[in-house]
Amino acid sequence: MFLPAQIIKKKRDGLCLNKDEIEFMVKGYYQGDLPDYQMAALLMAIVLKGMTKQEAADLTLSMLHSGDVLSFSGLSYLPVDKHSTGGIGDKTSLLIAPIVAACGVPVPMIAGRGLGHTGGTLDKLESIPGFNTQLTLDTFKKQVLSLSGAIIGQTKEICPADKKMYALRDVTGTVESIALICGSILSKKIAEGIKGLVMDVKWGTGAFMKTQAQAEELATWLAETAAKSGLKTTAFITDMNQPLGRFVGNAIEVLECLSIFKNEPVLGWDPKTFADTVELSLRLSAEMLCLSGHSTDHESAYNTCANVLKDGRAYKKFVEMCEAQGGNLQQFHFPTDLSWDTLSADSAGFIDSFDGESMGYGAIALGAGRKQTTDIIDPFASIIVHKKRGERVAKGDVILSYTSKELSRREAARPLLQKSFVVGKTAPPSFDLIFKKISVQ
Amino acid sequence: MFLPAQIIKKKRDGLCLNKDEIEFMVKGYYQGDLPDYQMAALLMAIVLKGMTKQEAADLTLSMLHSGDVLSFSGLSYLPVDKHSTGGIGDKTSLLIAPIVAACGVPVPMIAGRGLGHTGGTLDKLESIPGFNTQLTLDTFKKQVLSLSGAIIGQTKEICPADKKMYALRDVTGTVESIALICGSILSKKIAEGIKGLVMDVKWGTGAFMKTQAQAEELATWLAETAAKSGLKTTAFITDMNQPLGRFVGNAIEVLECLSIFKNEPVLGWDPKTFADTVELSLRLSAEMLCLSGHSTDHESAYNTCANVLKDGRAYKKFVEMCEAQGGNLQQFHFPTDLSWDTLSADSAGFIDSFDGESMGYGAIALGAGRKQTTDIIDPFASIIVHKKRGERVAKGDVILSYTSKELSRREAARPLLQKSFVVGKTAPPSFDLIFKKISVQ
Repeated sequence: MFLPAQIIKKKRDGLCLNKDEIEFMVKGYYQGDLPDYQMAALLMAIVLKGMTKQEAADLTLSMLHSGDVLSFSGLSYLPVDKHSTGGIGDKTSLLIAPIVAACGVPVPMIAGRGLGHTGGTLDKLESIPGFNTQLTLDTFKKQVLSLSGAIIGQTKEICPADKKMYALRDVTGTVESIALICGSILSKKIAEGIKGLVMDVKWGTGAFMKTQAQAEELATWLAETAAKSGLKTTAFITDMNQPLGRFVGNAIEVLECLSIFKNEPVLGWDPKTFADTVELSLRLSAEMLCLSGHSTDHESAYNTCANVLKDGRAYKKFVEMCEAQGGNLQQFHFPTDLSWDTLSADSAGFIDSFDGESMGYGAIALGAGRKQTTDIIDPFASIIVHKKRGERVAKGDVILSYTSKELSRREAARPLLQKSFVVGKTAPPSFDLIFKKISVQ
Repeated sequence: MFLPAQIIKKKRDGLCLNKDEIEFMVKGYYQGDLPDYQMAALLMAIVLKGMTKQEAADLTLSMLHSGDVLSFSGLSYLPVDKHSTGGIGDKTSLLIAPIVAACGVPVPMIAGRGLGHTGGTLDKLESIPGFNTQLTLDTFKKQVLSLSGAIIGQTKEICPADKKMYALRDVTGTVESIALICGSILSKKIAEGIKGLVMDVKWGTGAFMKTQAQAEELATWLAETAAKSGLKTTAFITDMNQPLGRFVGNAIEVLECLSIFKNEPVLGWDPKTFADTVELSLRLSAEMLCLSGHSTDHESAYNTCANVLKDGRAYKKFVEMCEAQGGNLQQFHFPTDLSWDTLSADSAGFIDSFDGESMGYGAIALGAGRKQTTDIIDPFASIIVHKKRGERVAKGDVILSYTSKELSRREAARPLLQKSFVVGKTAPPSFDLIFKKISVQ
C-alpha cells in the first residue's frame, strides 16, 4: 500500500520512483482516485528533480496501459511510424505514410493538430474536401490491414492518462520536463501497435529545441526511453533553421506533396525546388523500412523509397488512402483568385537566417494555425518561401509572398513575417539537413 | 491581470515573485478562484526553489489579510507573545503568559494542540476542569484588555488561508519549506494584534531542528521575515536535547507549573528540580517585556519577572486567567491511585543523551498525545524524568517512571521509552540552555 504524499516526497527529495510507485500514481490519477493537487505536486517535483530514463520508461508504460493498445498480427513486416517534434513547412508525414505503405509496410499513424507556431498533419489533410481524420480505432485498424496506411487523430481510447496529465501540466507550469515529454510522445506511439519508431527531432530557430545539443539530448532520451519501453527507435536530428520546402500553410502544403508525388510543377514552382522536403521524407521512410524488417540497410531502403516515389506507386497509395478516408482529391483546388502580398530584400546579399517562430506566428496571424484550440483554420492561408537560406538576393527580390482571405489578417501578419528573415552581406555557413542519427535497439 | 501558470513557471524557474503576484495566488486560493492543483504546483516549486525573506514576508501578509486581525489601542505597553517550535515537557507558555500579564503587559496568546511528538499548550490547559480554550475573538480581546492575558485556540476567523494551505501542504509533500513555515507561524501571530514576538527555536534530539545550524537558520528567517512584516522579533535558540523540567504529559505539566508558581514541592519533587523550566520561562518573559516597551534592558526585565513569580503575583494572574476562562483549579487534582512503571539504569554511569522523538512517541502511546487529530487525550498519561542529562546514575537507579490508565498502553510505550535515553560511561559535554539570541528590529 502506497501513500501518495510519501511518493511525492520521495521525488521531491530527488530519489528514484520504482515501477509500482509510478503505476500507482498514474493509475490512481486517471481512475480518479488521486486528486489533481497531488498529481500537480508530483509533476512539479519531476520537472525540478528529473527522472531517470528507466523512470520515464515506466511512466510511458503506465500511461500506455491507461487505454487501448492496438495490436497487429499476421503481417509480413512490423508496423512502424514516424514522429516529429514539429517545424515550419514540415509536410513529410503526407509523403512518408504513402511511401512506406506502398512498400507493404504497415503505418498506423495517429497524428496531431497544429501546436504553438508549428503546423499539424491533421489540419493539412483536412484541407482535402471530405477527408475524415476521426475514424474509429476499429476502422483505422482495418484500413491499416487493407491498405498498409492510415492517418487519424487522437481518440479518447488512446492514453487517456496522457490526455488528463497533459491538460494538468498545461495549467501548472509543468510541461517543460524531458521525461514527461518522452512519456507523452512514446505512450501514444506505442499504443498504435507499432514496433519501430523513427523520430525527427528538429533543432534551430523554427524548432522547439533551439540548439543541436538540446535536440541531441531529447533524441537520446527518446531513443533510450523507447528502447526500455520495448520500442525500437531511431532518432534523426534535423535542421529547422529554415522552413522545409517552399510552401507553408495547409492546402498549399498538400499542393507541394502532390507536386512531388506527380513530379509536376505547381504555382510555377518546379518539384526540384522542394528537394529538402523530398530528401528528409526519403531518409525517414528508409529508416522505417529498416525498423520494420523490410530492408536490412539504410541505403538500399532509401533507393526502394525513391523508386516507389518516382514510379508513382507512392502517389497511388496516397490516392487510395485519401479515398478510403473520404477525401476527394478531384475536388481539391487551390484558388487562383487569392490576394498575395510580398516582402522583398531591401539590399543585395544572401539570406542569412530565418526566425521560424516569427514565421509560424505570422502563419497563425494569416489564419493557417490556431491561437486557441477553438479557432477555425483557413485552409488557404499560405506563405511561399521564394528564397531559402544561403541563396543570393538582389535588392527588391521577393523573399516571401503570403495570402489570406482577409486584408486585416495580412496586415497583422506582415510585421511578424518581416521579422522572420534576415538578409546579410555574406553567405552564412550551411547546415546539414540531417545532423545526426541516434539509434538504440 | 496575472495568469496563475505564468506565476508558477516564474517560481519554478527560480525567480522572485513580487507582492502582487503572491497576493494574487494566496487571495485567489482562499477565495476559491485558484484551484488546489495550481496552488500545489506553486507550493512544490517554492519548496524546491525557495523564497527570499521579502517573498516570505509578502506571503505572511497575504495570509494574514485572509482573515480577521486583532487590534489593541490605548494600552500602556505593546501587546506581545511567545511562540515555540515545540519540544518535550515544554510548559513555559503556562508560566510566561501570567508572568508577563502580571507586569501589566498584554499577552493575547493563540496557542496550538499537540503536533507530532511534541505537546500542545491547549491540551495542557484543558486538563484543568472547565478551562475553555474556545473563546470568541471578541471575548478573547476583552479578557486581554481586562486581565492582560488570555490563551485560546485557533479560530476560523484567523488566517483561513493558512489553514487551507496547510491542509494542502500536508498531503502534497510541501510542508518542509522554511519560507512556508515562517509564513504560517508569523501570519497567525501577527493576527493576534501583537507588536512584538519572542520565538523559542529549539534544537536537538527532541526538536524539529536537529542541529544548532538548522535552528539558527530558522531563527534568522523568522526574525528577519517578521521584521519585514512589521513585527519586532527576538529569537532564542534553546536546548531540546532533553525534556524541559521533570514532568511530561498534560495535567502533570500543569502540576509542575503550580509547583513553580507556589514554590511548593509536588509528587515529592522540589521546585528547585524544575530550574530549567523556570530559567527559560524567565528569559523569554524578560524579552517580551523589552519588546513591549515595559523594560529597556533584558537583565532588569529578568529581575522584574523573577520578582512577580517569587512574590505570587504571577500565580494570582494564572488563577485569574483560569477563572475568567471557566477553569476550576480547586477541582484540579492529580490522581494518587495511578499505576506507575519504571525504567532503570542497567549499569552505573551518566545520562548521556535523550531521544526526544522516542520519548514523544512514547508519550503518545501512553495517551498523552494524538496519532490522529480525532484521538482523545488522557490528561493523566504522564512521564517523570528522574535523571537529567549529565546526571550520575548507579545501576538500578530509576531514570523514567510513567503512567497510563491502561496497561496495554504502558506496554506499548515501554520499548519507545526504553530507547529514549542512553547511559554512558562518562559525562557528556553540557549544552547551554540558551545557545544564542537573534534580534532584528
